[in-house]
Amino acid sequence: MAAAGEIRELTVDLGDRSYPIYIGSGLHAKSGEYFKRLGLPAGSPLLLVTDASVHGLYADRIKQSLQDAGYQVAVSVVPSGESSKSLTQLDALVADALTGGLDRKSTVVALGGGVVGDLAGFLAAVYMRGVRFVQMPTTILAHDSSVGGKTAVNHSLAKNIIGAFHQPEAVLYDLDALVSLPMREVRSGLSEVIKHGLIWDAAFVDWCEENAERLLALDPDALGYALYEGCKVKSIVVSRDERENDLRAILNLGHTIGHALEAAAGYGELLHGEAIAIGMVGSARLAARFGYGDDIAIRTEAIFRKFGLPVRIPAHLAADEIMKAMQHDKKFSEGSMVFVVPTSIGSVEIRRDVSASWVREIVEGLTEEA
Amino acid sequence: MAAAGEIRELTVDLGDRSYPIYIGSGLHAKSGEYFKRLGLPAGSPLLLVTDASVHGLYADRIKQSLQDAGYQVAVSVVPSGESSKSLTQLDALVADALTGGLDRKSTVVALGGGVVGDLAGFLAAVYMRGVRFVQMPTTILAHDSSVGGKTAVNHSLAKNIIGAFHQPEAVLYDLDALVSLPMREVRSGLSEVIKHGLIWDAAFVDWCEENAERLLALDPDALGYALYEGCKVKSIVVSRDERENDLRAILNLGHTIGHALEAAAGYGELLHGEAIAIGMVGSARLAARFGYGDDIAIRTEAIFRKFGLPVRIPAHLAADEIMKAMQHDKKFSEGSMVFVVPTSIGSVEIRRDVSASWVREIVEGLTEEA
Ligand SMILES: NC(=O)c1ccc[n+]([C@@H]2O[C@H](COP(=O)([O-])OP(=O)(O)OC[C@H]3O[C@@H](n4cnc5c(N)ncnc54)[C@H](O)[C@@H]3O)[C@@H](O)[C@H]2O)c1
Ligand SMILES: NC(=O)c1ccc[n+]([C@@H]2O[C@H](COP(=O)([O-])OP(=O)(O)OC[C@H]3O[C@@H](n4cnc5c(N)ncnc54)[C@H](O)[C@@H]3O)[C@@H](O)[C@H]2O)c1
Ligand SMILES: [Zn+2]
Ligand SMILES: [Zn+2]
Repeated sequence: MAAAGEIRELTVDLGDRSYPIYIGSGLHAKSGEYFKRLGLPAGSPLLLVTDASVHGLYADRIKQSLQDAGYQVAVSVVPSGESSKSLTQLDALVADALTGGLDRKSTVVALGGGVVGDLAGFLAAVYMRGVRFVQMPTTILAHDSSVGGKTAVNHSLAKNIIGAFHQPEAVLYDLDALVSLPMREVRSGLSEVIKHGLIWDAAFVDWCEENAERLLALDPDALGYALYEGCKVKSIVVSRDERENDLRAILNLGHTIGHALEAAAGYGELLHGEAIAIGMVGSARLAARFGYGDDIAIRTEAIFRKFGLPVRIPAHLAADEIMKAMQHDKKFSEGSMVFVVPTSIGSVEIRRDVSASWVREIVEGLTEEA
Repeated sequence: MAAAGEIRELTVDLGDRSYPIYIGSGLHAKSGEYFKRLGLPAGSPLLLVTDASVHGLYADRIKQSLQDAGYQVAVSVVPSGESSKSLTQLDALVADALTGGLDRKSTVVALGGGVVGDLAGFLAAVYMRGVRFVQMPTTILAHDSSVGGKTAVNHSLAKNIIGAFHQPEAVLYDLDALVSLPMREVRSGLSEVIKHGLIWDAAFVDWCEENAERLLALDPDALGYALYEGCKVKSIVVSRDERENDLRAILNLGHTIGHALEAAAGYGELLHGEAIAIGMVGSARLAARFGYGDDIAIRTEAIFRKFGLPVRIPAHLAADEIMKAMQHDKKFSEGSMVFVVPTSIGSVEIRRDVSASWVREIVEGLTEEA
């Protein structure tokens, strides 16, 4: 365990696209310093993209620090929430980038949760066919979304369907910014932290379970450690398979059902971490079908309950709608159904032989009584 | 000179992203054969994207050939013209791709001119964060746009500002499809062919000038040779600098002024090749300012006149508007003005020290009297 106030550091290993992740307190006020150390050109304007909730809390301090270091900074504020991950918002941000004078040497900065990270990252991927960007996550969930270079916006027919692989120059993760997070967002974010344990590291799952109260209370030391471990699993996986040809798909544990739930509920009703918590319970039940034992599902459910996360599908979501939403999910390959399935706590496998009727039975079994 | 009916072949050399260009007669009817030889998966649906003019002429034959080879083919038709290079059309194509069942192993096929190529290429770059695509150009201009992997759509404030580098799996160029091209499009396309001579190959410029009549009459042998040589220059340059870090910028000869003219006139009034013909005359005049002699401008202008291309800016375009449009052009770097300037016929250099007042004088000097 690191001393309070320490900056934890990790590297995402991707050859000439490698980049550092910094996790700790007080990073926002030092943004300018970090940007200079990273070699980000000060001769071209930056665009700081954030959302309406985060803007009032943290943007000014960062802008000031960047300006003190000699950067010219334009700021774009998008509405809070998933609906900002759209081509419409992309269009508006391109206008802001143009009027802000951003050129090919400019940097886009994403200050916010996964929504801002995915949207601003996609902007950076396509503006002038690609400029630099830096992730400054402000949610727990964004420990996941800010690492690995997946960027995207949604289409009315499917989530994250329009996107690009575009790695950031760095991830600057200021723990101090997490104190303003609504409790429901805290739980939702911890769901992805636990996911990283479930796919890779049984000991870390144990640690999370033992430290649930400290994590929910945002104890800085517990939180710093959990985010470091979560980012570490993500980094290792991404380093070995940047473009999701094989291994990287394990990060989708719980996401096939989770994304379908988000879509069926209408984006926004269920938080991402809530939806995938339910999805992970579903995947664990699928494991039993493949003969891996009921205990995985029982333990998985118990962990999420301990964190106050949902483990059942709300009664008003129809199985038909959920199954239909799954048809559009990218995790279908050549018609067959692909699922990440736990083989024990801390390890998973990718199954391409999952029958839709099993999935339907599991979805129905997980749905609350009306 | 190749025998009539011969298929000319070139390779764009980009390591594991290398791909072939086939130029010749009768290729549309053999699309299915080529797709299979290229190893494009038949287990996932294809999306053939084309525009309203091209659709009625050539889509059926290609669709038939692909189906005969075992491919499932969905077809999307966009309106003809530059205005289809938009996020709105992208959104519609993503819907078509989803309802057509396209997955990560699918291929997008661009059948049309540069508009369809750029739009469908960008779709392929971002759909599910990138799928395969094949270019089937049907204009002369598209010998340029189909090679090199630059894809993009326009924003209301700037052309090609939203895009990606995404190389095709192959370019299938059927010369037979060019006979239906309107004469103005023929001239416009030949403008980019000549550009490739002007930046790289003086002997090819001589050849173009000598064979102007045959080219304008679409003599298949002359045309096949010219497109082969044009694609060859483009391929060599792209192979050496895929992402436009330095050398590739020479392909932008005439484009800084050209794009500004297109924007100022409102996309559609001036064809792309027309706008850059004027732009190349402008760049040649800039060469004189750098002491390279008046003869470059005189010869450049004479060549374009011989091909019936415009060499003057229409009187109703205000210099102010043109200069303003240049501010948004990607070829500005850190505020200074960058231009590709000929040093002789067949060679160019990139100048970063071009003063805006010189450019303005040249723009004014090139504008027709009202
Ligand atoms: N790219 C990836 O690899 C990846 C991985 C996982 C999730 N995601 C995406 O991430 C998104 C979800 O991310 P999220 O949960 O961070 O959502 P979010 O960005 O919408 O943030 C959640 C809410 O918290 C608010 N907020 C953010 N930071 C705050 C702070 N410090 N204090 C107070 N309020 C704050 C936001 O305004 C928002 O209302 C989804 O769109 C999902 O698809 C992407
Ligand atoms: N990506 C690149 O590297 C690159 C390079 C150069 C130009 N471009 C882009 O290319 C576009 C211009 O390309 P274009 O000139 O081919 O325009 P285009 O695609 O609009 O085609 C020109 C016109 O000819 C019609 N047409 C096409 N093929 C035809 C055929 N065989 N018979 C009859 N009509 C036909 C089209 O419907 C259209 O009306 C511009 O958007 C430009 O930005 C891109
Ligand atoms: Zn997730
Ligand atoms: Zn061009």
